[in-house]
Amino acid sequence: MGSGQQTPTRRQLLNAIGLMGGTAALYQMMTTFGHAAETRFDGPPNLSGARKGASVIVLGAGLAGMLAAYELEKAGYKVRILEYQNRPGGRNWSLYGGDTYTEMGGATQHVKFAKGNYLNPGPWRIPHHHRTLLHYCKAFGVALEPFIQFNHNAYVHTTEAFGGAPQRFRSLAADFEGNVAELLGKAVDQKALDTRLTPEDVDRLKEALRSWGMLDENMRYTKGLRSSSHRGFDLPPGGGVNGAPKPSDLFPFDEVLKSGVWAQMAFFMNDEFQTTMFQPVGGMGKIGEGFGRKVGHLITYNAKVTKLHQDRSGVTVSYTDVAKGGAAVEAKADYCVCTIPLSVLSQIENNLSEKKNAAIQAVPYSGQVKIGLEMRRRFWEEDADIYGGHSFTNQQIGLVSYPNNNFFQDGPAVLLGAFASGAGGFNLAGMTPEERIEVALKEGSVFHPESYRKEFLSGASVAWSRVPWAMGCCARWNEQTRRDHYQELVALEDRVVLAGEHASYVGCWMEGSLLSALDAITRLHKRALEA
Amino acid sequence: MGSGQQTPTRRQLLNAIGLMGGTAALYQMMTTFGHAAETRFDGPPNLSGARKGASVIVLGAGLAGMLAAYELEKAGYKVRILEYQNRPGGRNWSLYGGDTYTEMGGATQHVKFAKGNYLNPGPWRIPHHHRTLLHYCKAFGVALEPFIQFNHNAYVHTTEAFGGAPQRFRSLAADFEGNVAELLGKAVDQKALDTRLTPEDVDRLKEALRSWGMLDENMRYTKGLRSSSHRGFDLPPGGGVNGAPKPSDLFPFDEVLKSGVWAQMAFFMNDEFQTTMFQPVGGMGKIGEGFGRKVGHLITYNAKVTKLHQDRSGVTVSYTDVAKGGAAVEAKADYCVCTIPLSVLSQIENNLSEKKNAAIQAVPYSGQVKIGLEMRRRFWEEDADIYGGHSFTNQQIGLVSYPNNNFFQDGPAVLLGAFASGAGGFNLAGMTPEERIEVALKEGSVFHPESYRKEFLSGASVAWSRVPWAMGCCARWNEQTRRDHYQELVALEDRVVLAGEHASYVGCWMEGSLLSALDAITRLHKRALEA
Repeated sequence: MGSGQQTPTRRQLLNAIGLMGGTAALYQMMTTFGHAAETRFDGPPNLSGARKGASVIVLGAGLAGMLAAYELEKAGYKVRILEYQNRPGGRNWSLYGGDTYTEMGGATQHVKFAKGNYLNPGPWRIPHHHRTLLHYCKAFGVALEPFIQFNHNAYVHTTEAFGGAPQRFRSLAADFEGNVAELLGKAVDQKALDTRLTPEDVDRLKEALRSWGMLDENMRYTKGLRSSSHRGFDLPPGGGVNGAPKPSDLFPFDEVLKSGVWAQMAFFMNDEFQTTMFQPVGGMGKIGEGFGRKVGHLITYNAKVTKLHQDRSGVTVSYTDVAKGGAAVEAKADYCVCTIPLSVLSQIENNLSEKKNAAIQAVPYSGQVKIGLEMRRRFWEEDADIYGGHSFTNQQIGLVSYPNNNFFQDGPAVLLGAFASGAGGFNLAGMTPEERIEVALKEGSVFHPESYRKEFLSGASVAWSRVPWAMGCCARWNEQTRRDHYQELVALEDRVVLAGEHASYVGCWMEGSLLSALDAITRLHKRALEA
Repeated sequence: MGSGQQTPTRRQLLNAIGLMGGTAALYQMMTTFGHAAETRFDGPPNLSGARKGASVIVLGAGLAGMLAAYELEKAGYKVRILEYQNRPGGRNWSLYGGDTYTEMGGATQHVKFAKGNYLNPGPWRIPHHHRTLLHYCKAFGVALEPFIQFNHNAYVHTTEAFGGAPQRFRSLAADFEGNVAELLGKAVDQKALDTRLTPEDVDRLKEALRSWGMLDENMRYTKGLRSSSHRGFDLPPGGGVNGAPKPSDLFPFDEVLKSGVWAQMAFFMNDEFQTTMFQPVGGMGKIGEGFGRKVGHLITYNAKVTKLHQDRSGVTVSYTDVAKGGAAVEAKADYCVCTIPLSVLSQIENNLSEKKNAAIQAVPYSGQVKIGLEMRRRFWEEDADIYGGHSFTNQQIGLVSYPNNNFFQDGPAVLLGAFASGAGGFNLAGMTPEERIEVALKEGSVFHPESYRKEFLSGASVAWSRVPWAMGCCARWNEQTRRDHYQELVALEDRVVLAGEHASYVGCWMEGSLLSALDAITRLHKRALEA
């Protein structure tokens, strides 16, 4: 996939401009080609000429650590990876039936899902423009399938509108657009807008509002087949003698505003959530497994890092074997790529600079909670015409998300019964796994009251603040911490460089960890060549 | 899938209302439950007690004819089907490598696509609420996969804006929303809107506009990370030292209006095109094959119907064998379900009433043209981050649509290089297949100028006005013809009933043909019982 991302050559550019001529050429240069630089990924790094025998120790076998190790080994470095867990992938992780998971606090869950079903506690979807990740998925044989992010037919629920009754996204969005179009049309007609709009623009705008907002011939948003073709019919078009459709009533606009549907409308337009998204076939953990197939021979599992020390001669890492116990062991290398989450790294003894440690301490981690609920049958498909996507709520669970694989199949399927953050995440993390399931069933029932409890089989949950090897979901930078600490955090310090989603502007995404790793090893390689 | 579609029992309704209480109950009744009647399909028809030995002849082995035959045979009728072609499915059809197709006028195409690649000349996508079709796909073992209808990252092109340079849908849509939000925000502030909005509504509306339209703190749509998070960045967020993103320039609003992007925005909100849509794995023709597996034993292929005659004793259909030739043969039955497209039926001798024949003659058929272009590699994915969906243009081809199967795979893939209707369809239908390909390559190149011709391997096209057995794509009713002729068309006339998408309000969709068939045979069965 590499070739396409490169900046077009001057010749290609001029050729393309020649095809268009005039204004077209200008716009083409300004816009299409400008935005074609949609990604930071130019293909695998070219780390040629590693110093013979130079060694790198990588801390953490998450995606950042494994990619760093893979490319460094390819370049000729002697690489090893220390990993706390007994599997590759880090936060790239799926829980399957038969898995056991013990969280901080000691609660142990035995996952009972049917074969093939899973919960992705961490990442669960891949934007189409995360090219680094897509590149390595293909290179490492990880099959992907569409992730249905946007579903017009899923529900929006808030206790603040419609007396707490969920409504279909499409109906709310259609009514929001229709009312906005009608209101702006009125304002335009009243010449209320002292703007830069020319009379021609005004005509075009009115045409646009009528078409986009499904307004009638009087520029009003009214009940009829036209508005129903967006929001849904009371009786949809059919066949034969009684085939004529019946339009649906519009919602009161004040309820539409209270529903907050505009937040979901904006959410779906966020570039990280725009269509088309993907997921690995068989669970997100397949990516970690794919990377693990390439660098598994470099990994020491069950290695808990207790100390990171560098001096003029090299880097020394102390670690204990969490499976077998015993005294700490030392590992030495010329360089170190440390991908340990800041939430954990901040608790590890080190002799990095004060500034670096201040940066490591400065960034809080979020505490999302995810809950998987296995249901006996796909009632959301069979009864509610919902195939993938999310139903949103202002309750603690945040949303219910529907599986994007095995559509139409009989037998059990796993819903994401909660993706809670903020106060909801905090509350759920404080509960036992059993209590979390109960909340998920209670709150999720608002969308599917007749089936939710009736079809429930078993559940599993992960509260990231209680994950022993991460102690949080991902780094939450803000403007202030970016300004004060980001460059300190990512700076190569003598022989040690940090990498991971926390060392990127694509925080909380796998792409961020990979881009960070590529940037880190490119700088490390340059330093090694200078040594 | 049947049980869920039924109207909830009174008990279920009251239970659900009990869960909510008060206003919730009211809205729940008015809206959620009202709209849950999203489909006309209540499960397979219950045609009990067919008169012993009663026979039905079905004309046409498209989906309507095959469903009618399947359910009538199940009910105990003696059924046979006459089909002009040598395969089941009718307009449900895929062209594969190795297929040969001769259109009216005599041009023959030998399709050269690689194994597994296809063009769907007719239907190509299934709305999630077309439950009749989804039900029978499952019942007949036709596997479905997502059809990516909505792709934020595909292009919109018009010769009327941006000097003819295509732009990404997301950037145009973001700028349309941002400008609409800013304008309406201004109007609201100027108290220009003499409306029913309360001060509270105004506050909520402003909050909504700010959030939905990505306005800044001054309620203005401006260049910045906020607008770029919807429209796309000039330099997206990255990892490591140079990870900070750079925002993109906004488009001039007059160009956005000229682009007509609001038409696409409205298109994606049309209930027939709302997410999630589906397609059969391996080509749309798999549905016809699936139905054919159930009723193949009833079908006489290569049977060209030349005469339809009914009297008090029964129905007589004359047909010739288009493969072997020879004189017309007569087939007799007690009843007839005729699913022949009106465009063809209008040319067949019959003794139906004048009113019925007037209805048959009244409905024009559309003349879409589809062109498949096989490309050496998926440059739209590799170079342009486009995975499925459509790039729209105001040129003759109408759109370029990207394949929704085998994402990320190497090797040839088939683009839909045109889905032309109106004047474009008429022009393309008048050309030779070779000329059509040339137009498709020329016009489609606007989206992918560097690769379109370079990677082209071979093409195939179907102009529906030249399809010998359909002579048009589908029935185009309007308000006038519906009023004057629809009930006449669908009315059971003695022993004959018509069925097909033309006998429905879901015109041009497979669902319409199935719903029409179910309605027709239900009435026919009732008549048979009365006989």
